[in-house]
Amino acid sequence: MSSAALYLIPTGLGGAPDEVLPPSTVQAVRALRDFAVENAKSARAFLAAVRMPCAMRELRISEIGEDADALLAPLRAGRALGVLTEAGCPGIADPGQALAAAAQAAGFRVVPLVGPSSLLLALMASGLEGQRFAFCGYLPREREPRAERIRALERRSREARETQIFIETPYRSDALLAALLTACADDTRLCVAVDLTLAGESIATRTIREWRRASPTLGRRPAVFLLLA
Amino acid sequence: MSSAALYLIPTGLGGAPDEVLPPSTVQAVRALRDFAVENAKSARAFLAAVRMPCAMRELRISEIGEDADALLAPLRAGRALGVLTEAGCPGIADPGQALAAAAQAAGFRVVPLVGPSSLLLALMASGLEGQRFAFCGYLPREREPRAERIRALERRSREARETQIFIETPYRSDALLAALLTACADDTRLCVAVDLTLAGESIATRTIREWRRASPTLGRRPAVFLLLA
Repeated sequence: MSSAALYLIPTGLGGAPDEVLPPSTVQAVRALRDFAVENAKSARAFLAAVRMPCAMRELRISEIGEDADALLAPLRAGRALGVLTEAGCPGIADPGQALAAAAQAAGFRVVPLVGPSSLLLALMASGLEGQRFAFCGYLPREREPRAERIRALERRSREARETQIFIETPYRSDALLAALLTACADDTRLCVAVDLTLAGESIATRTIREWRRASPTLGRRPAVFLLLA
Repeated sequence: MSSAALYLIPTGLGGAPDEVLPPSTVQAVRALRDFAVENAKSARAFLAAVRMPCAMRELRISEIGEDADALLAPLRAGRALGVLTEAGCPGIADPGQALAAAAQAAGFRVVPLVGPSSLLLALMASGLEGQRFAFCGYLPREREPRAERIRALERRSREARETQIFIETPYRSDALLAALLTACADDTRLCVAVDLTLAGESIATRTIREWRRASPTLGRRPAVFLLLA
């Protein structure tokens, strides 16, 4: 089989790469020399942390822009290409998806490497419905559209018995939590998962009624929210 | 913090555990002595493969039955408890969910360990919409309800621009693929991901029109299906 394959590299969620990534992933990364990355600076820091067996100047690193197809040049030249995005799994709610799509359309092999996904970790530990779940990305920022969206997610969760998963940028986590406590029904279950795989990891599933009593503060920590009505 | 926590242990998808699991996961497993498992025989094989630092007879292994709450006895006694299910991540479409839910309800810490998830790996490599996706579990087995369900998933995918993910037991993969090629629209994109993380791994995204021309045979390999209309 040709070595021209697109490797999707999970970067971990803040932990040391060689602790949170499997040996199979680290080995695959060390064999690569061409990379398409979301941010060159943090990509270099990651590649230094996995101890690439060559000088950093031997690596060819391109930032992901508008033209995903142009970034596939190494594949066309018969070389493997690694994709690195900012925290998480390339292709899941990030710019890695365009590269995977372009590689699939051109008929190249696409290889997803194993690593942490905050969505999956949060769902596992939530105890909420794992037979049916939906990831909805970010909710609207403005008060009214956000409240409407939360009620729509609650309805869909109830009708399909489906866990709804969504995320928010850290500095808006507390605003989203407050909106959830206002908009949701008393018995709806909400899981809030913060600092996954880090020292401060906390994953708690409570009813909205219980959350209101606890009046928690998340601060500016990365959080995943899961709701089951 | 008390050591009484529920650890959800991914077992890998067929590869050698110490290759496909991160050092942080293997270390956490080696510290455990109490396990609630879906199948005692394969759990013992897994625990042997991660080279537990004690004799197997020192491990307390209970099979998961109807009463999730009773299985939490080690937590009540102040000890950590590991959960092992058959291939994949406990809590996602498997009996681990009941234990996570019971532990959350009782206020115990629940810790998801990092490992491979076939759903996430397939989605990453598919190049399909990763901002919004839904996992729907298994489709109905009978021809007509299955065809209806496929059309409903296609509708939901089109309306919400959401990737629909579903699975099938290996010996029915070819029947499901045939049903998809019959029921779906020409331009719907379908990703078929088989043997994830194994030597025969193949993940291909094509339009239904292209799949019909290729008339592929999956055989009895574990497969994940992803659809975007």
